[in-house]
Amino acid sequence: MDDLIRTLLADGELAQFRLRAAYRGLVILCILGSTGIAIVDTVPDIWGRWQSLVDVLDILGLVLLSLDYVFRLRLAWLGKEDDEPEQRGFRSLRKYALGPYGIFDFVAVFPFLLEMTVLPLSPDAHTVFGIVRFLKLARYSPAIEILAAAVIEELKPLASALFIVAILAVAAATLMYFTERTVNEHFATVPDALWWAIITLTTVGYGDVVPITVMGKILNSFVAVLGLCMFALPASILATGFSEEMRRRNFMSTWNLVAKVPMFGSMHAGQIAEIASLLRPMRVPRGDIVVREGDVGDSMYFIVAGQLEARTPHGIFTLRAGDFFGEIAMVERNPRTATVVATMRSQLLELQVLDFQRFVGRYPELLDVIRETAKNRLQQ
Amino acid sequence: MDDLIRTLLADGELAQFRLRAAYRGLVILCILGSTGIAIVDTVPDIWGRWQSLVDVLDILGLVLLSLDYVFRLRLAWLGKEDDEPEQRGFRSLRKYALGPYGIFDFVAVFPFLLEMTVLPLSPDAHTVFGIVRFLKLARYSPAIEILAAAVIEELKPLASALFIVAILAVAAATLMYFTERTVNEHFATVPDALWWAIITLTTVGYGDVVPITVMGKILNSFVAVLGLCMFALPASILATGFSEEMRRRNFMSTWNLVAKVPMFGSMHAGQIAEIASLLRPMRVPRGDIVVREGDVGDSMYFIVAGQLEARTPHGIFTLRAGDFFGEIAMVERNPRTATVVATMRSQLLELQVLDFQRFVGRYPELLDVIRETAKNRLQQ
Amino acid sequence: MDDLIRTLLADGELAQFRLRAAYRGLVILCILGSTGIAIVDTVPDIWGRWQSLVDVLDILGLVLLSLDYVFRLRLAWLGKEDDEPEQRGFRSLRKYALGPYGIFDFVAVFPFLLEMTVLPLSPDAHTVFGIVRFLKLARYSPAIEILAAAVIEELKPLASALFIVAILAVAAATLMYFTERTVNEHFATVPDALWWAIITLTTVGYGDVVPITVMGKILNSFVAVLGLCMFALPASILATGFSEEMRRRNFMSTWNLVAKVPMFGSMHAGQIAEIASLLRPMRVPRGDIVVREGDVGDSMYFIVAGQLEARTPHGIFTLRAGDFFGEIAMVERNPRTATVVATMRSQLLELQVLDFQRFVGRYPELLDVIRETAKNRLQQ
Amino acid sequence: MDDLIRTLLADGELAQFRLRAAYRGLVILCILGSTGIAIVDTVPDIWGRWQSLVDVLDILGLVLLSLDYVFRLRLAWLGKEDDEPEQRGFRSLRKYALGPYGIFDFVAVFPFLLEMTVLPLSPDAHTVFGIVRFLKLARYSPAIEILAAAVIEELKPLASALFIVAILAVAAATLMYFTERTVNEHFATVPDALWWAIITLTTVGYGDVVPITVMGKILNSFVAVLGLCMFALPASILATGFSEEMRRRNFMSTWNLVAKVPMFGSMHAGQIAEIASLLRPMRVPRGDIVVREGDVGDSMYFIVAGQLEARTPHGIFTLRAGDFFGEIAMVERNPRTATVVATMRSQLLELQVLDFQRFVGRYPELLDVIRETAKNRLQQ
Repeated sequence: MDDLIRTLLADGELAQFRLRAAYRGLVILCILGSTGIAIVDTVPDIWGRWQSLVDVLDILGLVLLSLDYVFRLRLAWLGKEDDEPEQRGFRSLRKYALGPYGIFDFVAVFPFLLEMTVLPLSPDAHTVFGIVRFLKLARYSPAIEILAAAVIEELKPLASALFIVAILAVAAATLMYFTERTVNEHFATVPDALWWAIITLTTVGYGDVVPITVMGKILNSFVAVLGLCMFALPASILATGFSEEMRRRNFMSTWNLVAKVPMFGSMHAGQIAEIASLLRPMRVPRGDIVVREGDVGDSMYFIVAGQLEARTPHGIFTLRAGDFFGEIAMVERNPRTATVVATMRSQLLELQVLDFQRFVGRYPELLDVIRETAKNRLQQ
Repeated sequence: MDDLIRTLLADGELAQFRLRAAYRGLVILCILGSTGIAIVDTVPDIWGRWQSLVDVLDILGLVLLSLDYVFRLRLAWLGKEDDEPEQRGFRSLRKYALGPYGIFDFVAVFPFLLEMTVLPLSPDAHTVFGIVRFLKLARYSPAIEILAAAVIEELKPLASALFIVAILAVAAATLMYFTERTVNEHFATVPDALWWAIITLTTVGYGDVVPITVMGKILNSFVAVLGLCMFALPASILATGFSEEMRRRNFMSTWNLVAKVPMFGSMHAGQIAEIASLLRPMRVPRGDIVVREGDVGDSMYFIVAGQLEARTPHGIFTLRAGDFFGEIAMVERNPRTATVVATMRSQLLELQVLDFQRFVGRYPELLDVIRETAKNRLQQ
Repeated sequence: MDDLIRTLLADGELAQFRLRAAYRGLVILCILGSTGIAIVDTVPDIWGRWQSLVDVLDILGLVLLSLDYVFRLRLAWLGKEDDEPEQRGFRSLRKYALGPYGIFDFVAVFPFLLEMTVLPLSPDAHTVFGIVRFLKLARYSPAIEILAAAVIEELKPLASALFIVAILAVAAATLMYFTERTVNEHFATVPDALWWAIITLTTVGYGDVVPITVMGKILNSFVAVLGLCMFALPASILATGFSEEMRRRNFMSTWNLVAKVPMFGSMHAGQIAEIASLLRPMRVPRGDIVVREGDVGDSMYFIVAGQLEARTPHGIFTLRAGDFFGEIAMVERNPRTATVVATMRSQLLELQVLDFQRFVGRYPELLDVIRETAKNRLQQ
Repeated sequence: MDDLIRTLLADGELAQFRLRAAYRGLVILCILGSTGIAIVDTVPDIWGRWQSLVDVLDILGLVLLSLDYVFRLRLAWLGKEDDEPEQRGFRSLRKYALGPYGIFDFVAVFPFLLEMTVLPLSPDAHTVFGIVRFLKLARYSPAIEILAAAVIEELKPLASALFIVAILAVAAATLMYFTERTVNEHFATVPDALWWAIITLTTVGYGDVVPITVMGKILNSFVAVLGLCMFALPASILATGFSEEMRRRNFMSTWNLVAKVPMFGSMHAGQIAEIASLLRPMRVPRGDIVVREGDVGDSMYFIVAGQLEARTPHGIFTLRAGDFFGEIAMVERNPRTATVVATMRSQLLELQVLDFQRFVGRYPELLDVIRETAKNRLQQ
């Protein structure tokens, strides 16, 4: 049983991938279904005669989510394999249960367990808890963590940009208030004008509050232009920070993989960091075709883990961790001479032709190795 | 006949360009016209007494599109000249007919052929098929392929960003539902509030659903600001991925051309990749003026294929594949000393002055060749 | 008393940080509260029976802001410690009082002092002065200075882009005026059409003015598409200029810190400028944990000022200005081997692993020093 | 008289700058005023009793614009000083009069001349010609030329992106037509639905056409999200192309100046191109302060033309074309040791500290010259 839980929930291993993926898909489906039902339930009598079917589906989903929570508690109690013994048991359980993901998992099923056992919830609490279940999805997407990291990293410029927007909104609202308050009831108070200012500056423009005097319209025109220009500031700061953070995470995961490739094993830290910035990690499931004979070749691959097989007109060759392939198309500018298929789930590092120049420019000895291999393979 | 089909439809050759361009223009016109008529036809009695003229034009266009489909079937049957014989005939025909472009071509004319022969379509089917004809245009624009490649490449960050937006939308809708449901019929259910949330977050802001309480307006203000900031994420990820993908395609096509220039022929793969990232491919039709005497010169050109002639005050010189020109303006910072005209459709590689520094910085021996040539030409 | 003022208001010192932060927070709270009350006061009878409490709070806030102004006057009279004596006293006082921040500080309290002493203000003047108080916040945010610098730096492209938008707006308005003036009273004059053009081009789209003829709608569609494309120009110019200016400011502050680290002391100006572009300044308050044992290490730190302590399983080591730490994780790709805590407020320079490659690529002798230190520390 | 015309209209010279600037300001004012009057004139009886004053001002402005046209014709007849004699006279006159600027200048005054002499125009023609006058401003802004160059340069990706948007719009309109045509008169025909699709995809969102069924709202939500994502494509392509084109123009003008500085005179073409990409051209009018004693110094300057004077505590030194200044702050990281003022209009090249590292990294011999000079100046 413990092994099953480990198999279903543990991350990052290459074996038993399909079972894990299926379980994960099932849990995500339950979350989406359960949240969807909670949202649609607020429409009176929406289900009609399907009501009982929906109720059964909802309860089935929640039973599975409850099981998932129990599994995760057990997994946390068991601890990770490379943890020291004193870190496991109650300590690792507490760490999980009080961490954000543990809380999300708990909140997702707690009201259901409550309703099943002790007391029924009010319809409103039912709706809220049903929708909050959505947060459990956060575990399956790095997006929120990355966004949070980006916001923290760019906090100062972001706050600066929002401060400018706030000043603009207050100034626009005050001016509009004095321009139109006597003739337009929508601008009778500064808070009313602030509502207009924000809806205009964000370019939402509902149109429920619109100036009616000439001066008001001129002012509004300037505010609309300024708003469009100014709101590019926080938006572009956030977009840049987000993509920067994603790049950093990709780099970190590549960095840890590069040293596992024998070819780069003897390099010092600075060189590995440079190579890591040129390579891109890539996971291929079993059976995937990585390169196809006859295609234009615009990248080569280093194998970190797993196994692939190269199907050439002259036979089938096995490629193992530490090998590389796809170099012929880069060096000779030929189309692909073989089709390479993963015979088990594999971890590759991709080197695109655009980065190839920087790669061999700095490490000409690597180019020699690659060319030698390409020549040998072509002669076969 | 087969030769004519090859001339009209085949890509990438330098000869017979005008005939091909004319045919292509005619087909595009037929597609646009046919789609336009299908769209406008949904307005009752729009054509008035021009009805019969429009009908005739529509049928003429569809006849030409049918011919185009027949031509393409024949071309597919013939196969490409560098295909092996067993790849041609039925196999290459099937490959075309079941590929996306083959299906688009078929769908564009199928309802017309059906209507002409067997049975008339309902007006709705007529409209749908007429509009779907638009997709045939995809063949003439790389945009959709590039967008698809960009979406696949950036799938993870894109999904992450959209997930954040989805959480934001659900959270905003739930909060607004509890804030206004009792006083504002537009927020009576969570799905109603979701409609408001999405229209606000995307800054579309129709204004058909607007909060009326103070708390609702404050909430709305925050949602509008957050939405503007958050939607920059997927938009900028997509924009970056799209331009990245376009750059990659440009690089690939340049890369294949660079090795054809004798000057770069002896270089190794990494150097060619580097030079390819500095040059930009450029096709000039016959008769086009590439540089004009007396202009400020900010780039030089390498000839990959075709032929040009340099008209200088001292005579006319012919430039052939492998030659380069425009180097005098770069090395001597003179205005152009000659007018260079393409005497046949030519393929050039452009080196802009901004990239010239990197170019000669790495390959000083190339600078020597270029300066030598410039000196000789100036002495003439 | 003078010492207290210096402590509360002076910038950039490492001691007495908490007292200063608390005072700053109090002042910002007073500004926000006072502005907020002025805004909400325009709603008749909003406070109800809390009126007197709000009044008392408002007066308390203004008394504190008045004190702040007096403190700042006194501080300006005292001058900075490194000023020459003749620069202090009346000259430095005048410089402060007539500078933008001095004027903002004065405007924030002047109407209050006037009302308390001489004459009551009209409600409108009260509102205006209350809201203008907001500007005093500018002192606490570099945003406005940065924006102003960015606007000045990018003035030409910005003006160019806005000029294009202006031409577009005038052209769109003129065309729409001639298209709809006879049938749609909203387009009866060109200024009316200009209102529509600006609201459409900025994508605000209130919907109060909408074309009703087919030609008008076609024109409007083109204007909407063009507007979206064109307004990206000023918005992206401003966003780029803003982030460029922030980068410049960060670089300048790093540049001044780098030479204080003994390791870089012997380098020449160009090298220091290069290293400064790789490092990022970081201030840590007392008690902050900079790196935590067992974490993945993706940066190392140089200490410019302050003091930290490294808590390892083998004892506690003190780190002082000029030392560096965190290098083991970078060189050996281990998790962190120690927890480092600031024992006083410290100024660090962070080197991220992404920049590490460029750093050691150019200065291999620095890598030797860093590796040597890492080896010694690991042997302990 | 010819000399006066040359002085008023000729570009790029360093002398008589103020007179030219004043004349240019006057012409721009006349254009703006004349266009403004034409726009406001469409409002009936707007001027009231100021009608005659406005008429007089309008005529005065048009007289001046007519004079400007005559001046420009004369200047074109005279030709440029470095033109060969046979290029002047009638040939250069025709070149101007039939070029875009000549036509704009003509159109700006032609209707006025017509009205004054032969026949009165209809009010509509009056309005159109009055507003078209705006185009004459194009001469004073490089924006339109740059935009046109950017559009041509990025034509393919731009067309690709707009094609995607067009497909999206047609697809959305067709789907919405079939979803709502029976219940919502706003979607009775596909062209009606296209109007909704474009206004939604551009996020303008007037709100005059909104779906009312649940399916329609779901479809609309997807369209709004897709639209926001997709429209980032053309907008960012255009923004990138525009800033790229501005950068190219700046580079070209710097490139022509660099070789005039003796220090860089002996360098070869590739090196000059590299230095040009690090420097930024800067024009300072007479009397302008370039650096101020005591400021933080973040750039140094090379003098291309003109003359400046350095006011130090030890005396006043004259700086001439070929000299450089501001290097002390860069090399020694001191505040500025002198105030430098332009004694005539000067052309400088600025080197920012951020680019200084690349500059001296590649050309260490330049650093030696700069440091030597800095040392000598400090010893004085």
